[in-house]
Amino acid sequence: MILVNSEQSDQIAVADRGLQYGDGLFETIAVLNGQLQFWQHHMARLSEGCGRLGIPEPAIPLLLNEARKAAQGQAKGIIKIIITRGQGGRGYRAPKPAQPSRIVAFHPWPDYPEQMHSDGVVLRYCRTMLGISPALAGLKHLNRLEQVLARSEWDEPEIFEGVMSDVNGHLVEGTMSNIFFVDAWGLHTPDLSYNGVSGIMRGRILAMAEALGMYCQTGRFSHRELNQADELFICNSIIGIVPVRELEGLQKQPGPVAQKIIIELNKLRLDNSQHESV
Amino acid sequence: MILVNSEQSDQIAVADRGLQYGDGLFETIAVLNGQLQFWQHHMARLSEGCGRLGIPEPAIPLLLNEARKAAQGQAKGIIKIIITRGQGGRGYRAPKPAQPSRIVAFHPWPDYPEQMHSDGVVLRYCRTMLGISPALAGLKHLNRLEQVLARSEWDEPEIFEGVMSDVNGHLVEGTMSNIFFVDAWGLHTPDLSYNGVSGIMRGRILAMAEALGMYCQTGRFSHRELNQADELFICNSIIGIVPVRELEGLQKQPGPVAQKIIIELNKLRLDNSQHESV
Repeated sequence: MILVNSEQSDQIAVADRGLQYGDGLFETIAVLNGQLQFWQHHMARLSEGCGRLGIPEPAIPLLLNEARKAAQGQAKGIIKIIITRGQGGRGYRAPKPAQPSRIVAFHPWPDYPEQMHSDGVVLRYCRTMLGISPALAGLKHLNRLEQVLARSEWDEPEIFEGVMSDVNGHLVEGTMSNIFFVDAWGLHTPDLSYNGVSGIMRGRILAMAEALGMYCQTGRFSHRELNQADELFICNSIIGIVPVRELEGLQKQPGPVAQKIIIELNKLRLDNSQHESV
Repeated sequence: MILVNSEQSDQIAVADRGLQYGDGLFETIAVLNGQLQFWQHHMARLSEGCGRLGIPEPAIPLLLNEARKAAQGQAKGIIKIIITRGQGGRGYRAPKPAQPSRIVAFHPWPDYPEQMHSDGVVLRYCRTMLGISPALAGLKHLNRLEQVLARSEWDEPEIFEGVMSDVNGHLVEGTMSNIFFVDAWGLHTPDLSYNGVSGIMRGRILAMAEALGMYCQTGRFSHRELNQADELFICNSIIGIVPVRELEGLQKQPGPVAQKIIIELNKLRLDNSQHESV
Protein backbone atom coordinates (compact mmCIF):
# COMPACT_ATOMS: atom_id res chain seq x y z
CA MET A 1 0.00 0.00 0.00
CA ILE A 2 1.15 3.54 -0.76
CA LEU A 3 -0.18 6.59 1.06
CA VAL A 4 0.32 10.06 -0.39
CA ASN A 5 -0.52 12.68 2.22
CA SER A 6 -2.58 10.09 4.10
CA GLU A 7 -4.63 9.07 1.05
CA GLN A 8 -4.15 5.75 -0.68
CA SER A 9 -2.65 6.52 -4.09
CA ASP A 10 0.24 5.43 -6.27
CA GLN A 11 0.47 8.81 -8.05
CA ILE A 12 2.02 12.16 -7.23
CA ALA A 13 1.73 15.54 -8.93
CA VAL A 14 4.17 16.13 -11.78
CA ALA A 15 4.65 19.58 -10.24
CA ASP A 16 5.99 18.10 -7.01
CA ARG A 17 9.49 19.36 -6.33
CA GLY A 18 10.51 15.83 -5.42
CA LEU A 19 10.29 14.95 -9.11
CA GLN A 20 11.28 18.34 -10.53
CA TYR A 21 14.46 18.77 -8.47
CA GLY A 22 14.90 15.80 -6.14
CA ASP A 23 13.93 18.32 -3.47
CA GLY A 24 13.34 15.97 -0.57
CA LEU A 25 14.51 13.19 1.70
CA PHE A 26 13.74 9.54 2.32
CA GLU A 27 13.99 6.84 4.95
CA THR A 28 14.01 3.10 4.41
CA ILE A 29 12.85 1.31 7.55
CA ALA A 30 12.97 -2.42 8.20
CA VAL A 31 9.79 -4.06 9.52
CA LEU A 32 10.90 -7.14 11.46
CA ASN A 33 8.80 -9.14 13.91
CA GLY A 34 6.05 -6.59 13.33
CA GLN A 35 8.30 -3.78 14.55
CA LEU A 36 9.36 -0.62 12.70
CA GLN A 37 13.03 -1.04 13.53
CA PHE A 38 14.82 1.95 15.05
CA TRP A 39 11.84 4.18 14.27
CA GLN A 40 13.04 6.96 16.54
CA HIS A 41 16.49 7.01 15.00
CA HIS A 42 15.00 7.21 11.52
CA MET A 43 12.71 10.04 12.60
CA ALA A 44 15.62 11.91 14.22
CA ARG A 45 17.61 11.74 10.98
CA LEU A 46 14.55 12.79 8.96
CA SER A 47 14.01 15.77 11.27
CA GLU A 48 17.65 16.78 11.02
CA GLY A 49 17.52 16.51 7.23
CA CYS A 50 14.37 18.63 7.07
CA GLY A 51 16.13 21.22 9.21
CA ARG A 52 19.16 21.32 6.94
CA LEU A 53 17.07 21.57 3.76
CA GLY A 54 14.58 24.02 5.26
CA ILE A 55 11.63 21.68 4.72
CA PRO A 56 8.95 21.92 7.43
CA GLU A 57 9.15 18.76 9.55
CA PRO A 58 6.25 16.34 9.24
CA ALA A 59 4.35 15.48 12.42
CA ILE A 60 5.99 12.26 13.60
CA PRO A 61 2.82 10.74 15.17
CA LEU A 62 1.05 11.28 11.84
CA LEU A 63 3.91 9.57 9.97
CA LEU A 64 3.77 6.67 12.44
CA ASN A 65 0.05 6.26 11.83
CA GLU A 66 0.67 6.27 8.09
CA ALA A 67 3.51 3.74 8.39
CA ARG A 68 1.24 1.47 10.43
CA LYS A 69 -1.57 1.81 7.90
CA ALA A 70 0.76 1.13 4.95
CA ALA A 71 2.31 -1.92 6.66
CA GLN A 72 -1.16 -3.20 7.64
CA GLY A 73 0.05 -5.46 10.41
CA GLN A 74 2.75 -7.15 8.26
CA ALA A 75 5.43 -8.94 10.26
CA LYS A 76 8.24 -8.36 7.75
CA GLY A 77 8.94 -5.90 4.97
CA ILE A 78 10.12 -2.38 4.29
CA ILE A 79 8.50 0.97 4.92
CA LYS A 80 9.89 3.68 2.66
CA ILE A 81 9.04 7.25 3.58
CA ILE A 82 9.64 10.12 1.16
CA ILE A 83 9.23 13.72 2.29
CA THR A 84 9.41 16.34 -0.47
CA ARG A 85 9.08 20.11 -0.33
CA GLY A 86 5.76 19.71 -2.16
CA GLN A 87 4.58 21.84 -5.05
CA GLY A 88 5.12 25.47 -5.84
CA GLY A 89 7.79 28.10 -5.85
CA ARG A 90 9.31 29.62 -8.93
CA GLY A 91 12.06 27.56 -10.44
CA TYR A 92 14.52 26.53 -7.77
CA ARG A 93 13.13 29.11 -5.38
CA ALA A 94 11.10 27.30 -2.74
CA PRO A 95 7.58 28.36 -1.77
CA LYS A 96 7.28 29.95 1.66
CA PRO A 97 5.83 28.31 3.57
CA ALA A 98 6.29 25.00 1.80
CA GLN A 99 3.58 22.36 2.04
CA PRO A 100 5.59 19.14 2.05
CA SER A 101 4.36 15.92 0.49
CA ARG A 102 4.46 12.71 2.51
CA ILE A 103 4.72 9.38 0.72
CA VAL A 104 4.64 6.24 2.85
CA ALA A 105 4.93 2.92 1.02
CA PHE A 106 5.19 -0.70 2.11
CA HIS A 107 7.45 -3.00 0.09
CA PRO A 108 8.02 -6.75 0.48
CA TRP A 109 11.34 -7.87 1.91
CA PRO A 110 13.95 -8.23 -0.89
CA ASP A 111 15.19 -11.71 -1.79
CA TYR A 112 18.72 -11.31 -0.51
CA PRO A 113 21.07 -14.33 -0.48
CA GLU A 114 20.01 -16.51 2.45
CA GLN A 115 23.48 -17.21 3.78
CA MET A 116 24.85 -13.69 3.46
CA HIS A 117 25.07 -13.06 7.21
CA SER A 118 27.12 -16.21 7.82
CA ASP A 119 29.02 -16.65 4.54
CA GLY A 120 29.57 -13.01 3.68
CA VAL A 121 29.16 -11.23 0.35
CA VAL A 122 31.33 -10.15 -2.58
CA LEU A 123 32.17 -6.47 -3.18
CA ARG A 124 33.75 -4.59 -6.06
CA TYR A 125 35.14 -1.10 -6.41
CA CYS A 126 33.06 1.35 -8.47
CA ARG A 127 34.56 3.67 -11.07
CA THR A 128 31.77 6.23 -10.58
CA MET A 129 33.05 8.76 -8.07
CA LEU A 130 30.97 10.48 -5.45
CA GLY A 131 30.95 14.24 -5.60
CA ILE A 132 32.27 16.36 -2.75
CA SER A 133 29.24 18.24 -1.57
CA PRO A 134 29.31 19.35 2.08
CA ALA A 135 25.87 20.99 1.78
CA LEU A 136 24.31 17.56 1.25
CA ALA A 137 26.77 15.33 3.13
CA GLY A 138 25.19 12.81 5.48
CA LEU A 139 21.65 13.43 4.24
CA LYS A 140 19.48 10.70 2.81
CA HIS A 141 18.22 13.02 0.07
CA LEU A 142 16.57 12.27 -3.25
CA ASN A 143 19.56 13.23 -5.45
CA ARG A 144 20.80 9.71 -6.12
CA LEU A 145 22.10 9.72 -9.69
CA GLU A 146 25.66 8.92 -8.66
CA GLN A 147 24.44 5.79 -6.88
CA VAL A 148 22.35 4.82 -9.91
CA LEU A 149 25.38 5.19 -12.20
CA ALA A 150 27.62 3.26 -9.80
CA ARG A 151 25.08 0.44 -9.52
CA SER A 152 24.89 0.23 -13.32
CA GLU A 153 28.57 -0.75 -13.49
CA TRP A 154 27.95 -4.44 -12.88
CA ASP A 155 25.36 -7.09 -13.65
CA GLU A 156 27.01 -10.15 -12.07
CA PRO A 157 24.52 -11.51 -9.53
CA GLU A 158 27.38 -12.80 -7.33
CA ILE A 159 28.53 -9.23 -6.66
CA PHE A 160 26.41 -7.83 -3.88
CA GLU A 161 27.66 -4.28 -3.53
CA GLY A 162 30.06 -1.71 -4.98
CA VAL A 163 32.37 0.51 -2.93
CA MET A 164 32.47 4.20 -3.87
CA SER A 165 35.24 6.71 -3.31
CA ASP A 166 35.08 10.44 -3.83
CA VAL A 167 36.90 12.48 -6.46
CA ASN A 168 39.86 12.79 -4.08
CA GLY A 169 40.15 9.01 -3.75
CA HIS A 170 38.76 8.89 -0.24
CA LEU A 171 36.54 5.95 0.57
CA VAL A 172 32.95 6.91 1.31
CA GLU A 173 30.47 4.03 1.29
CA GLY A 174 28.76 1.39 -0.78
CA THR A 175 26.05 2.30 -3.29
CA MET A 176 23.38 1.32 -0.72
CA SER A 177 25.36 0.63 2.45
CA ASN A 178 27.97 2.01 4.82
CA ILE A 179 31.26 0.22 5.21
CA PHE A 180 33.41 -0.72 8.20
CA PHE A 181 36.80 -2.39 8.38
CA VAL A 182 38.88 -3.88 11.15
CA ASP A 183 42.64 -3.75 11.52
CA ALA A 184 45.08 -4.21 14.40
CA TRP A 185 43.93 -0.88 15.87
CA GLY A 186 40.23 -1.57 15.87
CA LEU A 187 37.15 -0.65 13.90
CA HIS A 188 37.11 2.09 11.26
CA THR A 189 34.54 3.70 8.99
CA PRO A 190 34.83 6.65 6.59
CA ASP A 191 34.09 10.12 7.86
CA LEU A 192 31.01 11.52 6.06
CA SER A 193 31.60 15.28 6.35
CA TYR A 194 31.90 15.77 2.60
CA ASN A 195 29.52 13.25 1.11
CA GLY A 196 27.74 9.99 1.85
CA VAL A 197 24.70 8.95 3.79
CA SER A 198 24.90 8.86 7.55
CA GLY A 199 23.21 5.48 7.92
CA ILE A 200 21.05 4.58 10.90
CA MET A 201 22.76 1.17 11.14
CA ARG A 202 26.16 2.88 10.94
CA GLY A 203 25.13 5.06 13.88
CA ARG A 204 23.92 2.01 15.85
CA ILE A 205 27.22 0.21 15.16
CA LEU A 206 29.27 3.19 16.35
CA ALA A 207 27.16 3.30 19.53
CA MET A 208 27.41 -0.49 20.05
CA ALA A 209 31.19 -0.46 19.51
CA GLU A 210 31.52 2.24 22.14
CA ALA A 211 29.30 0.32 24.55
CA LEU A 212 31.45 -2.79 23.97
CA GLY A 213 34.60 -0.78 24.69
CA MET A 214 35.93 -1.24 21.15
CA TYR A 215 38.29 1.29 19.63
CA CYS A 216 36.36 2.85 16.76
CA GLN A 217 37.58 5.63 14.47
CA THR A 218 35.92 7.61 11.70
CA GLY A 219 38.46 9.01 9.26
CA ARG A 220 39.73 9.35 5.75
CA PHE A 221 40.75 6.10 4.12
CA SER A 222 41.58 4.78 0.68
CA HIS A 223 41.43 1.44 -1.16
CA ARG A 224 44.72 0.55 0.52
CA GLU A 225 43.24 0.33 4.02
CA LEU A 226 40.29 -1.73 2.77
CA ASN A 227 42.54 -4.09 0.82
CA GLN A 228 44.75 -4.66 3.85
CA ALA A 229 41.95 -4.88 6.42
CA ASP A 230 41.66 -8.10 8.43
CA GLU A 231 37.94 -7.94 8.36
CA LEU A 232 35.33 -5.99 6.46
CA PHE A 233 31.59 -5.58 6.73
CA ILE A 234 28.80 -3.47 5.25
CA CYS A 235 25.55 -2.37 6.80
CA ASN A 236 22.24 -0.68 6.21
CA SER A 237 18.83 -0.64 7.86
CA ILE A 238 17.54 -3.55 5.82
CA ILE A 239 20.47 -5.95 5.53
CA GLY A 240 21.69 -5.17 9.03
CA ILE A 241 25.39 -6.10 9.27
CA VAL A 242 26.83 -8.31 6.53
CA PRO A 243 30.43 -9.56 6.48
CA VAL A 244 32.47 -9.37 3.28
CA ARG A 245 34.13 -12.53 2.00
CA GLU A 246 35.69 -11.04 -1.13
CA LEU A 247 36.64 -7.54 -2.24
CA GLU A 248 37.67 -7.05 -5.88
CA GLY A 249 39.20 -10.54 -5.98
CA LEU A 250 40.83 -10.32 -2.52
CA GLN A 251 39.63 -13.00 -0.13
CA LYS A 252 38.46 -11.80 3.29
CA GLN A 253 37.42 -13.76 6.34
CA PRO A 254 34.13 -12.99 8.05
CA GLY A 255 35.70 -12.35 11.43
CA PRO A 256 35.11 -12.06 15.15
CA VAL A 257 34.50 -8.31 15.31
CA ALA A 258 31.63 -8.40 12.85
CA GLN A 259 30.22 -11.47 14.62
CA LYS A 260 30.37 -9.71 17.99
CA ILE A 261 28.54 -6.67 16.63
CA ILE A 262 26.00 -8.83 14.77
CA ILE A 263 25.17 -10.53 18.10
CA GLU A 264 24.67 -7.13 19.73
CA LEU A 265 22.54 -5.97 16.82
CA ASN A 266 20.37 -9.08 17.03
CA LYS A 267 19.75 -8.26 20.69
CA LEU A 268 18.75 -4.72 19.73
CA ARG A 269 16.51 -6.01 16.95
CA LEU A 270 14.64 -8.10 19.51
CA ASP A 271 14.46 -5.26 22.04
CA ASN A 272 11.06 -3.75 21.32
CA SER A 273 11.83 -0.62 23.33
CA GLN A 274 14.02 0.39 20.35
CA HIS A 275 11.16 0.11 17.88
CA GLU A 276 7.49 0.85 17.22
CA SER A 277 5.02 -1.89 16.48
CA VAL A 278 3.20 -1.72 13.15
CA MET B 1 -1.21 21.40 -20.49
CA ILE B 2 0.93 18.53 -19.24
CA LEU B 3 1.42 15.32 -21.17
CA VAL B 4 2.76 12.21 -19.46
CA ASN B 5 3.74 9.60 -22.05
CA SER B 6 1.47 11.33 -24.57
CA GLU B 7 -1.59 11.33 -22.28
CA GLN B 8 -2.91 14.50 -20.69
CA SER B 9 -2.24 14.17 -16.96
CA ASP B 10 -0.72 16.12 -14.11
CA GLN B 11 0.24 12.99 -12.15
CA ILE B 12 3.10 10.53 -12.30
CA ALA B 13 3.64 7.19 -10.56
CA VAL B 14 5.21 7.40 -7.11
CA ALA B 15 7.37 4.47 -8.25
CA ASP B 16 8.92 6.55 -11.05
CA ARG B 17 12.68 6.73 -10.64
CA GLY B 18 12.51 10.44 -11.42
CA LEU B 19 10.93 10.94 -8.00
CA GLN B 20 12.68 8.10 -6.17
CA TYR B 21 16.24 9.03 -7.21
CA GLY B 22 16.16 12.07 -9.48
CA ASP B 23 17.01 9.52 -12.17
CA GLY B 24 16.41 11.64 -15.25
CA LEU B 25 17.05 14.78 -17.27
CA PHE B 26 15.17 17.89 -18.27
CA GLU B 27 15.11 20.63 -20.90
CA THR B 28 13.57 24.06 -20.57
CA ILE B 29 12.76 25.45 -24.00
CA ALA B 30 11.65 28.97 -24.83
CA VAL B 31 8.60 29.37 -27.06
CA LEU B 32 8.96 32.75 -28.80
CA ASN B 33 7.04 33.94 -31.85
CA GLY B 34 5.41 30.52 -31.93
CA GLN B 35 8.81 28.84 -32.28
CA LEU B 36 10.40 26.23 -30.06
CA GLN B 37 13.72 28.02 -29.83
CA PHE B 38 16.86 26.01 -30.61
CA TRP B 39 14.85 22.80 -30.58
CA GLN B 40 17.60 20.78 -32.23
CA HIS B 41 20.22 21.97 -29.78
CA HIS B 42 18.01 21.03 -26.86
CA MET B 43 17.37 17.61 -28.38
CA ALA B 44 21.08 17.07 -29.01
CA ARG B 45 21.85 17.79 -25.34
CA LEU B 46 19.00 15.56 -24.21
CA SER B 47 20.28 12.72 -26.41
CA GLU B 48 23.80 13.15 -25.08
CA GLY B 49 22.51 13.15 -21.51
CA CYS B 50 20.49 9.98 -22.13
CA GLY B 51 23.62 8.38 -23.53
CA ARG B 52 25.70 9.31 -20.50
CA LEU B 53 23.05 8.11 -18.03
CA GLY B 54 22.20 4.99 -20.03
CA ILE B 55 18.56 6.01 -20.48
CA PRO B 56 17.04 4.92 -23.84
CA GLU B 57 16.63 8.03 -25.98
CA PRO B 58 13.08 9.17 -26.63
CA ALA B 59 11.98 9.43 -30.26
CA ILE B 60 12.56 13.09 -31.11
CA PRO B 61 9.62 13.39 -33.61
CA LEU B 62 7.32 12.04 -30.88
CA LEU B 63 8.67 14.59 -28.39
CA LEU B 64 8.17 17.36 -30.95
CA ASN B 65 4.54 16.30 -31.44
CA GLU B 66 4.03 16.31 -27.68
CA ALA B 67 5.68 19.73 -27.31
CA ARG B 68 3.38 21.10 -30.04
CA LYS B 69 0.33 19.59 -28.40
CA ALA B 70 1.30 20.92 -24.95
CA ALA B 71 1.99 24.43 -26.31
CA GLN B 72 -1.29 24.36 -28.30
CA GLY B 73 -0.30 27.09 -30.75
CA GLN B 74 0.85 29.53 -28.02
CA ALA B 75 3.11 32.29 -29.27
CA LYS B 76 5.11 32.67 -26.06
CA GLY B 77 5.88 30.49 -23.06
CA ILE B 78 8.04 27.66 -21.88
CA ILE B 79 8.05 23.98 -22.74
CA LYS B 80 9.66 21.87 -20.03
CA ILE B 81 10.51 18.30 -20.95
CA ILE B 82 11.45 15.75 -18.31
CA ILE B 83 12.76 12.32 -19.29
CA THR B 84 13.12 9.82 -16.45
CA ARG B 85 14.29 6.21 -16.47
CA GLY B 86 10.70 5.23 -15.67
CA GLN B 87 9.63 2.66 -13.12
CA GLY B 88 11.26 -0.53 -12.01
CA GLY B 89 14.60 -1.97 -11.12
CA ARG B 90 15.64 -2.98 -7.64
CA GLY B 91 16.86 -0.13 -5.52
CA TYR B 92 19.41 1.91 -7.43
CA ARG B 93 19.80 -0.86 -9.97
CA ALA B 94 18.09 0.19 -13.19
CA PRO B 95 15.67 -2.05 -15.04
CA LYS B 96 16.97 -3.45 -18.32
CA PRO B 97 15.61 -2.38 -20.65
CA ALA B 98 14.27 0.77 -19.01
CA GLN B 99 10.95 2.19 -20.16
CA PRO B 100 11.52 5.92 -19.78
CA SER B 101 8.78 8.36 -18.81
CA ARG B 102 8.23 11.49 -20.90
CA ILE B 103 6.70 14.56 -19.31
CA VAL B 104 6.05 17.54 -21.55
CA ALA B 105 4.53 20.62 -19.91
CA PHE B 106 3.71 24.12 -21.08
CA HIS B 107 4.26 26.99 -18.63
CA PRO B 108 3.46 30.69 -19.06
CA TRP B 109 6.38 33.06 -19.56
CA PRO B 110 7.74 34.22 -16.17
CA ASP B 111 7.26 37.85 -15.14
CA TYR B 112 10.89 38.88 -15.38
CA PRO B 113 11.83 42.57 -14.89
CA GLU B 114 10.90 44.34 -18.12
CA GLN B 115 14.08 46.36 -18.46
CA MET B 116 16.53 43.61 -17.58
CA HIS B 117 18.01 43.32 -21.05
CA SER B 118 18.82 47.02 -21.24
CA ASP B 119 19.41 47.97 -17.59
CA GLY B 120 21.01 44.77 -16.41
CA VAL B 121 20.38 42.79 -13.23
CA VAL B 122 21.88 42.44 -9.76
CA LEU B 123 23.82 39.32 -8.73
CA ARG B 124 25.10 38.01 -5.42
CA TYR B 125 27.55 35.29 -4.48
CA CYS B 126 26.05 32.15 -2.96
CA ARG B 127 27.52 30.42 0.08
CA THR B 128 26.17 27.04 -1.00
CA MET B 129 28.95 25.32 -2.90
CA LEU B 130 28.51 23.09 -5.90
CA GLY B 131 29.89 19.59 -5.54
CA ILE B 132 32.64 18.28 -7.79
CA SER B 133 31.02 15.46 -9.67
CA PRO B 134 32.52 14.67 -13.07
CA ALA B 135 30.02 11.84 -13.66
CA LEU B 136 27.21 14.40 -13.81
CA ALA B 137 29.08 17.50 -15.04
CA GLY B 138 27.39 19.36 -17.86
CA LEU B 139 24.15 17.37 -17.65
CA LYS B 140 20.80 19.01 -17.05
CA HIS B 141 19.80 16.23 -14.66
CA LEU B 142 17.10 16.11 -12.00
CA ASN B 143 19.49 16.23 -8.99
CA ARG B 144 19.06 19.92 -8.18
CA LEU B 145 19.20 20.19 -4.40
CA GLU B 146 22.33 22.34 -4.43
CA GLN B 147 20.58 24.88 -6.64
CA VAL B 148 17.51 24.82 -4.40
CA LEU B 149 19.68 25.49 -1.33
CA ALA B 150 21.61 28.25 -3.10
CA ARG B 151 18.39 29.93 -4.26
CA SER B 152 17.07 29.82 -0.68
CA GLU B 153 19.89 32.11 0.47
CA TRP B 154 18.11 35.31 -0.51
CA ASP B 155 14.61 36.77 -0.66
CA GLU B 156 15.37 40.29 -1.88
CA PRO B 157 13.39 40.75 -5.12
CA GLU B 158 16.05 43.14 -6.48
CA ILE B 159 18.60 40.31 -6.58
CA PHE B 160 18.05 38.37 -9.78
CA GLU B 161 20.59 35.59 -9.54
CA GLY B 162 23.25 34.03 -7.32
CA VAL B 163 26.70 32.97 -8.50
CA MET B 164 27.92 29.55 -7.37
CA SER B 165 31.47 28.29 -6.97
CA ASP B 166 32.58 24.75 -6.28
CA VAL B 167 34.20 23.40 -3.14
CA ASN B 168 37.63 24.35 -4.56
CA GLY B 169 36.54 27.98 -5.00
CA HIS B 170 36.26 27.75 -8.78
CA LEU B 171 33.42 29.70 -10.36
CA VAL B 172 30.84 27.49 -12.02
CA GLU B 173 27.55 29.22 -12.88
CA GLY B 174 24.45 30.92 -11.53
CA THR B 175 21.71 28.92 -9.85
CA MET B 176 19.72 28.95 -13.11
CA SER B 177 22.11 30.51 -15.63
CA ASN B 178 25.59 30.33 -17.07
CA ILE B 179 27.92 33.26 -16.61
CA PHE B 180 30.32 35.11 -18.92
CA PHE B 181 32.74 37.94 -18.23
CA VAL B 182 34.79 40.24 -20.38
CA ASP B 183 38.27 41.57 -19.67
CA ALA B 184 41.06 43.07 -21.77
CA TRP B 185 41.71 39.62 -23.32
CA GLY B 186 38.19 38.89 -24.39
CA LEU B 187 35.27 36.76 -23.33
CA HIS B 188 35.50 34.06 -20.64
CA THR B 189 33.21 31.49 -19.11
CA PRO B 190 33.89 28.75 -16.57
CA ASP B 191 34.91 25.32 -17.79
CA LEU B 192 32.22 22.78 -16.86
CA SER B 193 34.23 19.55 -16.75
CA TYR B 194 33.64 18.98 -13.04
CA ASN B 195 30.14 20.33 -12.43
CA GLY B 196 27.55 22.72 -13.82
CA VAL B 197 25.02 22.65 -16.62
CA SER B 198 26.25 23.00 -20.17
CA GLY B 199 23.59 25.53 -21.19
CA ILE B 200 22.17 25.70 -24.71
CA MET B 201 22.47 29.51 -24.65
CA ARG B 202 26.06 29.20 -23.40
CA GLY B 203 26.78 26.96 -26.38
CA ARG B 204 25.14 29.44 -28.78
CA ILE B 205 27.18 32.29 -27.29
CA LEU B 206 30.45 30.38 -27.68
CA ALA B 207 29.51 29.67 -31.31
CA MET B 208 28.46 33.31 -31.95
CA ALA B 209 31.66 34.65 -30.38
CA GLU B 210 33.71 32.40 -32.62
CA ALA B 211 31.72 33.49 -35.69
CA LEU B 212 32.29 37.14 -34.69
CA GLY B 213 36.01 36.50 -34.38
CA MET B 214 36.02 37.24 -30.64
CA TYR B 215 38.62 35.71 -28.37
CA CYS B 216 36.67 33.40 -26.08
CA GLN B 217 38.14 31.15 -23.40
CA THR B 218 36.65 28.53 -21.09
CA GLY B 219 38.73 28.07 -17.97
CA ARG B 220 38.98 28.05 -14.22
CA PHE B 221 38.21 31.32 -12.54
CA SER B 222 37.47 32.68 -9.08
CA HIS B 223 35.55 35.60 -7.58
CA ARG B 224 38.60 37.76 -8.30
CA GLU B 225 38.20 37.62 -12.09
CA LEU B 226 34.47 38.33 -11.85
CA ASN B 227 35.01 41.25 -9.47
CA GLN B 228 37.61 42.79 -11.77
CA ALA B 229 35.78 42.09 -15.04
CA ASP B 230 34.87 45.05 -17.24
CA GLU B 231 31.63 43.48 -18.22
CA LEU B 232 29.53 40.59 -17.03
CA PHE B 233 26.47 38.81 -18.32
CA ILE B 234 24.39 35.74 -17.58
CA CYS B 235 22.36 33.58 -19.92
CA ASN B 236 19.91 30.75 -20.18
CA SER B 237 17.40 29.52 -22.74
CA ILE B 238 14.57 31.61 -21.32
CA ILE B 239 16.17 34.93 -20.34
CA GLY B 240 18.53 34.87 -23.30
CA ILE B 241 21.51 37.12 -22.53
CA VAL B 242 21.17 39.56 -19.64
CA PRO B 243 23.87 42.05 -18.64
CA VAL B 244 24.85 42.49 -15.00
CA ARG B 245 24.76 45.96 -13.49
CA GLU B 246 25.79 45.00 -9.96
CA LEU B 247 27.63 42.04 -8.40
CA GLU B 248 27.70 41.76 -4.62
CA GLY B 249 27.71 45.57 -4.29
CA LEU B 250 30.23 46.16 -7.11
CA GLN B 251 28.84 48.34 -9.91
CA LYS B 252 29.20 46.96 -13.44
CA GLN B 253 28.43 48.55 -16.78
CA PRO B 254 26.29 46.74 -19.31
CA GLY B 255 28.87 46.93 -22.07
CA PRO B 256 29.51 46.61 -25.78
CA VAL B 257 30.43 42.92 -25.89
CA ALA B 258 27.17 41.79 -24.35
CA GLN B 259 25.29 44.20 -26.64
CA LYS B 260 27.02 42.81 -29.71
CA ILE B 261 26.17 39.24 -28.74
CA ILE B 262 22.59 40.18 -27.81
CA ILE B 263 22.15 41.61 -31.32
CA GLU B 264 23.44 38.37 -32.83
CA LEU B 265 21.19 36.35 -30.56
CA ASN B 266 18.17 38.40 -31.55
CA LYS B 267 18.94 37.62 -35.20
CA LEU B 268 19.12 33.91 -34.34
CA ARG B 269 15.88 34.11 -32.39
CA LEU B 270 14.15 35.48 -35.49
CA ASP B 271 15.80 32.93 -37.80
CA ASN B 272 13.16 30.23 -37.98
CA SER B 273 15.59 27.75 -39.49
CA GLN B 274 17.07 27.47 -35.97
CA HIS B 275 13.73 26.50 -34.46
CA GLU B 276 10.60 24.39 -34.81
CA SER B 277 7.17 25.97 -34.96
CA VAL B 278 4.68 24.93 -32.30
